[in-house]
Amino acid sequence: MAVREADVQITIVGSEEQIKPALQKEGISHLVGFVPTSQVVTMHDSPIEAVRKKKDSSVVVAFELLKKGEVDAVVSPGNSGAVMAAAVKFLGRLKDVSRPGIASVFPTLKGPVVVMDVGANVDCRPKHLLQFGVMASAFSRVMYGIERPRVGLLSIGEEGGKGNALVKSAHALFQNSGLNFIGNVEGRDTFVGDVDVIICDGFVGNVCLKLSEGLAEAILSMLREEIGKTFKARLGYLLARQAFGNFKKRVDYAEYGGAPLLGFNGTGVICHGRSNMVAIKNALLVADGLARHNVNGHILELLEKTGPALAQFDENQVPAGAA
Amino acid sequence: MAVREADVQITIVGSEEQIKPALQKEGISHLVGFVPTSQVVTMHDSPIEAVRKKKDSSVVVAFELLKKGEVDAVVSPGNSGAVMAAAVKFLGRLKDVSRPGIASVFPTLKGPVVVMDVGANVDCRPKHLLQFGVMASAFSRVMYGIERPRVGLLSIGEEGGKGNALVKSAHALFQNSGLNFIGNVEGRDTFVGDVDVIICDGFVGNVCLKLSEGLAEAILSMLREEIGKTFKARLGYLLARQAFGNFKKRVDYAEYGGAPLLGFNGTGVICHGRSNMVAIKNALLVADGLARHNVNGHILELLEKTGPALAQFDENQVPAGAA
Repeated sequence: MAVREADVQITIVGSEEQIKPALQKEGISHLVGFVPTSQVVTMHDSPIEAVRKKKDSSVVVAFELLKKGEVDAVVSPGNSGAVMAAAVKFLGRLKDVSRPGIASVFPTLKGPVVVMDVGANVDCRPKHLLQFGVMASAFSRVMYGIERPRVGLLSIGEEGGKGNALVKSAHALFQNSGLNFIGNVEGRDTFVGDVDVIICDGFVGNVCLKLSEGLAEAILSMLREEIGKTFKARLGYLLARQAFGNFKKRVDYAEYGGAPLLGFNGTGVICHGRSNMVAIKNALLVADGLARHNVNGHILELLEKTGPALAQFDENQVPAGAA
Repeated sequence: MAVREADVQITIVGSEEQIKPALQKEGISHLVGFVPTSQVVTMHDSPIEAVRKKKDSSVVVAFELLKKGEVDAVVSPGNSGAVMAAAVKFLGRLKDVSRPGIASVFPTLKGPVVVMDVGANVDCRPKHLLQFGVMASAFSRVMYGIERPRVGLLSIGEEGGKGNALVKSAHALFQNSGLNFIGNVEGRDTFVGDVDVIICDGFVGNVCLKLSEGLAEAILSMLREEIGKTFKARLGYLLARQAFGNFKKRVDYAEYGGAPLLGFNGTGVICHGRSNMVAIKNALLVADGLARHNVNGHILELLEKTGPALAQFDENQVPAGAA
């Protein structure tokens, strides 16, 4: 699907035994390259140890290919900690980026919103949040063509004085950053679509991501349960089935192409372990877009603009408790 | 509705001009007491100043009545910061409670789950989270009759080693607390219903609360939009309308009776500013239940059990960054 939709070359890295027959069965062996590996990083492996010891696993081999310049980006639905660890080891941080992170795209009533960080950095300082703002803005510009994405800081009140110590301190930093900062946004603003980028620490972002997935599933499952109770409602559902299908497509994670790693010397995209065909295809297209349109160049350019604000900010005292 | 459903006496505190005619129109003046006030705390008032200066506002007068023992609980859909401030001023903290907080009840696929704190305490230490666990457990026991509520710590991975510095440190404390601690829970577990109490700091809790409300609204609004697009789907909706109604009732905040203040010498319940009739009625019944079944007695009893764990814990070093 990806090869047919875009001008993209794909190399699959993984178990020959498991993957080759599937490619042959689909008659697409000739469309993709293949690099066989013999080891597997499981979900229970310690990420750092796995990357060190399982040298012939797909995640390690794929990032080695990226480092050698044989591929332009890596997409992985595997152990996301191991993917991060491999990126740290083989790519390293982009110049001046303190903490690379993971972004995620949420659907809203209008367009998509980019949320960062969603799990890589659980305890942050204000400057980390600012750099997430830079990286997510560059992503939004490259992927959605938004010249100056509106950036909001996730908090619990719209005024700058509202939030925890970290957010209150970061608010001042964002105001002078050169980003298109629109102030604090609240949880309820996330799905309205009036902001292009939402910034939070990786603990809050990961909780929000999983809470949203869990709630969407719970709502659909309650609705299904209620509809299943009467014949009339089941009939009604059949008539409205197309509408339900369109709705599901709007909120389906598979449509949003995985979670990009941002801030590394190279392009990586993480996908759900339970990714379906469409999710992987979209992740491949996101990876292609990021590499092709040089998201890292945009990040470096935006980072430079925030330099003065950061230098100014470091001279000041960070409010107590904002560590 | 509340008077008819339960053996409860109600005193309304507020603007005579605005409320009396409504009571007369409904023919229920004889069912409720009335205390007129002349001042109004708005949503823009600074909570602490409002409570100090607006001595004849409903929130101040209501908490004075509670302090004097003329009522057993206060329910307010007003400025929630002002309600907290009034509780601090007129009731004071329950013995040995470091930080009173606000709990909220979320619907799940099974029963309700109590989440605490949802906004009163944005920067917390592990012992504050433990006390939220105590207070929310007491609430769950009193309101839902669960003898030993299952308590989960909201984090970003199930293992004790996963989370930010605060949660990792709190995890150790919860394990020896005497609470029915089942370990970390993730965002996606919130709506499944396999945990009775979920603990987090007030920043995370408030973000989760508002994110959930926003997402539920967005989902319903997308669904409505899709259904509105074709005649067939609209017809289907009409047939399934009852199912949609039942579903809405299951997720309607109004059914869950407002957010109790826990940890004060007295009972208070905060409601949404946009509360409808059913929401206020349910909040009155929750307040009645908390006062009648002595939730504060249960809190004190559970607190005593956690004493040894807390004493033990205070002797140890809290990991750096967990402040």
